[in-house]
Amino acid sequence: MSFTRFDRYVDRHARSFTERLQDLCRMPSVAARGTGMRAVAEKVEQMLQRVGAGTRAFKVGSGFPIIYGECGAGPRCFLVYGHYDVQPVGQLTEWSSGPFAAVVVDGVLRARGASNSKGDLVARLAAVEAYQKTYGKLPVCLRFVVEGEDGLASPSLYRFASENAGLLRADGCVWDDGYKDTRERLVINLGFKGIAFLELRAYGARTDLHSKWGGIVPNPAWRLVQALSTVVSPKGVITIDGFSSHVAPLTSDDRQMLKTIELDEAGLRREFRIGGWLHGMTGRELAKELIFGPTCTICGIRTGHTEAGAKTILPGAATARLDFRLVPDLTPELVVTLLREHLDKRGFLDVEINELGSAPYAKSSPASMVARAAIEAAGEVYGQPPVVYPLDPASGPVGAVCGANDPPTPVVSFGISHAGSNPHGPDENIRLDDFIQGVKYFGRVIHGLAALEDEAPQKRAQTALVKLNK
Amino acid sequence: MSFTRFDRYVDRHARSFTERLQDLCRMPSVAARGTGMRAVAEKVEQMLQRVGAGTRAFKVGSGFPIIYGECGAGPRCFLVYGHYDVQPVGQLTEWSSGPFAAVVVDGVLRARGASNSKGDLVARLAAVEAYQKTYGKLPVCLRFVVEGEDGLASPSLYRFASENAGLLRADGCVWDDGYKDTRERLVINLGFKGIAFLELRAYGARTDLHSKWGGIVPNPAWRLVQALSTVVSPKGVITIDGFSSHVAPLTSDDRQMLKTIELDEAGLRREFRIGGWLHGMTGRELAKELIFGPTCTICGIRTGHTEAGAKTILPGAATARLDFRLVPDLTPELVVTLLREHLDKRGFLDVEINELGSAPYAKSSPASMVARAAIEAAGEVYGQPPVVYPLDPASGPVGAVCGANDPPTPVVSFGISHAGSNPHGPDENIRLDDFIQGVKYFGRVIHGLAALEDEAPQKRAQTALVKLNK
Repeated sequence: MSFTRFDRYVDRHARSFTERLQDLCRMPSVAARGTGMRAVAEKVEQMLQRVGAGTRAFKVGSGFPIIYGECGAGPRCFLVYGHYDVQPVGQLTEWSSGPFAAVVVDGVLRARGASNSKGDLVARLAAVEAYQKTYGKLPVCLRFVVEGEDGLASPSLYRFASENAGLLRADGCVWDDGYKDTRERLVINLGFKGIAFLELRAYGARTDLHSKWGGIVPNPAWRLVQALSTVVSPKGVITIDGFSSHVAPLTSDDRQMLKTIELDEAGLRREFRIGGWLHGMTGRELAKELIFGPTCTICGIRTGHTEAGAKTILPGAATARLDFRLVPDLTPELVVTLLREHLDKRGFLDVEINELGSAPYAKSSPASMVARAAIEAAGEVYGQPPVVYPLDPASGPVGAVCGANDPPTPVVSFGISHAGSNPHGPDENIRLDDFIQGVKYFGRVIHGLAALEDEAPQKRAQTALVKLNK
Repeated sequence: MSFTRFDRYVDRHARSFTERLQDLCRMPSVAARGTGMRAVAEKVEQMLQRVGAGTRAFKVGSGFPIIYGECGAGPRCFLVYGHYDVQPVGQLTEWSSGPFAAVVVDGVLRARGASNSKGDLVARLAAVEAYQKTYGKLPVCLRFVVEGEDGLASPSLYRFASENAGLLRADGCVWDDGYKDTRERLVINLGFKGIAFLELRAYGARTDLHSKWGGIVPNPAWRLVQALSTVVSPKGVITIDGFSSHVAPLTSDDRQMLKTIELDEAGLRREFRIGGWLHGMTGRELAKELIFGPTCTICGIRTGHTEAGAKTILPGAATARLDFRLVPDLTPELVVTLLREHLDKRGFLDVEINELGSAPYAKSSPASMVARAAIEAAGEVYGQPPVVYPLDPASGPVGAVCGANDPPTPVVSFGISHAGSNPHGPDENIRLDDFIQGVKYFGRVIHGLAALEDEAPQKRAQTALVKLNK
């Protein structure tokens, strides 16, 4: 099939698509703050209706609504995941322009949420529109699931998924996260690492004390430091008892894909401004560690007084946040169990572990339909083959959406960001050329999803089981 | 000598002394805020002039003035240290009445600064007045040095001392810090521990990154935790190479005094709400550790994100503040050198050490005149012998004042606070009975300073070298 007409439509409407994205980015929707969420959710529902989708807003408990929308028809059905909430803006002074001003400078749209991931949602809906306007009805059924709690570890999505497994039955799922690497190659992920996000806490006196008591009153900050120092070695290796024995060996597919992956080490080092990588890794070893290595990251430590002014105190409590990224066969439950046993065995029975959030890993076969459709469509639009990662080093609530049915729905993830999009930091941005390329690419993916031969047939998706707003 | 007339004068003027203190406490003088400082400094100078002192306000650079006042005459000369600034008030909601309302309820005066240490200054000046009114001219020369930067680590005082060593030549020094312990015994300190307040810093990427990079990008929080874990053992022992070899053994005086010291362990544990003391110490061992043990306290750690909301990041920097309390023969310079060598030897060359502040220890002989005068005068006023600490576990700029000449001026410290005065927290307070007792006690100390036989003669103080306001 030729995409000439489709591409022409996209190019002609590029400005209008961009304005839609700017409008959406100008509506703040920081889930952690909770303001403006309903307005954005309604806007998303309207945008889905605009492309003819039947929609429904699912409200789970007191959470932010999940917008569900179904459009197109065909023998196959695919989920398209998105989220309308955005990360907190952080220090305003670090932004070159207001995070919700959605300013375009030199072809770059700067806004909180532009990259993560309002841009992806708008691009995909634009592709649906362009497809319909140029070729008519979609040849597949697309089920959009757009949540508002990505920044809150998606509690509503998990409940929604467990209560509406039927709505999530599909031949595959397209996730919303992705970018071009520093060499401008589209990155396609065939899954995500899992995550266990934990808080470790130690307690001392009922309040901060004068530090003259330091010689005789237990200091929870020292306690926490000592406990943490047993978890990861000075060389950066996770030293929790039994942990490494649960890391599965690479499959032959994994090894095959790994051969094609080469990190832009110099570019990344320049971007991060670091002298070298952990334990001096380079090349294949570095890529393997990034993709297949489990991690244990201290995301934050808080204890005592660290503001301006000399205040010599003995802290009353100390807290560390640890984030484990999990590869097969590590589960969040297992990590908590192993860590608890590890700390107890070393006498740290007093160090509390609280679970802040978790998600299982998801890993799809490169032979699955979504993977093949995504990989095969990339060359024409991007001018070079994509880089296919067996696992995204990041995590997401993929397990909620794709694990609602058994066997799990194969997932693939890609997006319109670039290596400098800084999706969690200041000056989050996308390049408009990438955005328009993303629209063109998604049109081809839609087509591929319908046209591909099914090498591994799965159960057909049923018709939606709920009444939708049309 | 009988103090009947003196005591009668004090009792008759108790109310007036209290009102003076209330007036002073109603003038806010938080050095960290910097407002109202000049007014309080002027007030202090007037109070000194009121008892006939020649005064001078020393202004060092842009700092708050140091009020110097000299009164009395005799063959001996003693320094009396004080400070007119007060601690920040902290959370106003935690106060039962305004921190500068200086309300008296049930014989307790509640105000920021009442205990630390405007009450001591007013009591000492009241004692001078009562002495003069009942017995005439002071038989010794008292040199008051009252600074306004106690809360800022006394930068001006250090410069003042180095430029005016002659003004600080004296037979002894009375410091302003002190209280009755939980058993209502007057605590007399014969010195202070030194302090080295350091900041350790590790750097990673130029900014916080998405934690998916945790497997390959160096994490400064892990780096800092690993470095810190080598500094103090899990049992709380300082493990810096060579550190313990610089801790001097106790003198026979120290051992003698230690025998009379008993901590109110149950009372303190209740106050701090802790189950037990560090490494399960109790009794003599506990007191010895508190007084003679060097400490290394983590006062604060800051790295990454620890606020509300799940934010899984890889921090770009990590900072810990360490406060070492120093006993003979540990100096701040030595601690920095030893720590640097210790970290370097273990490969932590990248962990920066910044010095935030320091003060040397000060330790006087119990045979010094100020010590004997303070100890001998206590029984009559307090009805029981004082508890004599060879070292206060806290620190102060004693080195500036008492180290300006060689050999250092012997120092002794006591005050009018009680165990529940909470000098750095909300509802700082003193009991008026303690305040009046403090006036009576200081009258006797003045007398003792003049009358005591000089067992260890020192160089005579010279006449003041500056022109004073009379």
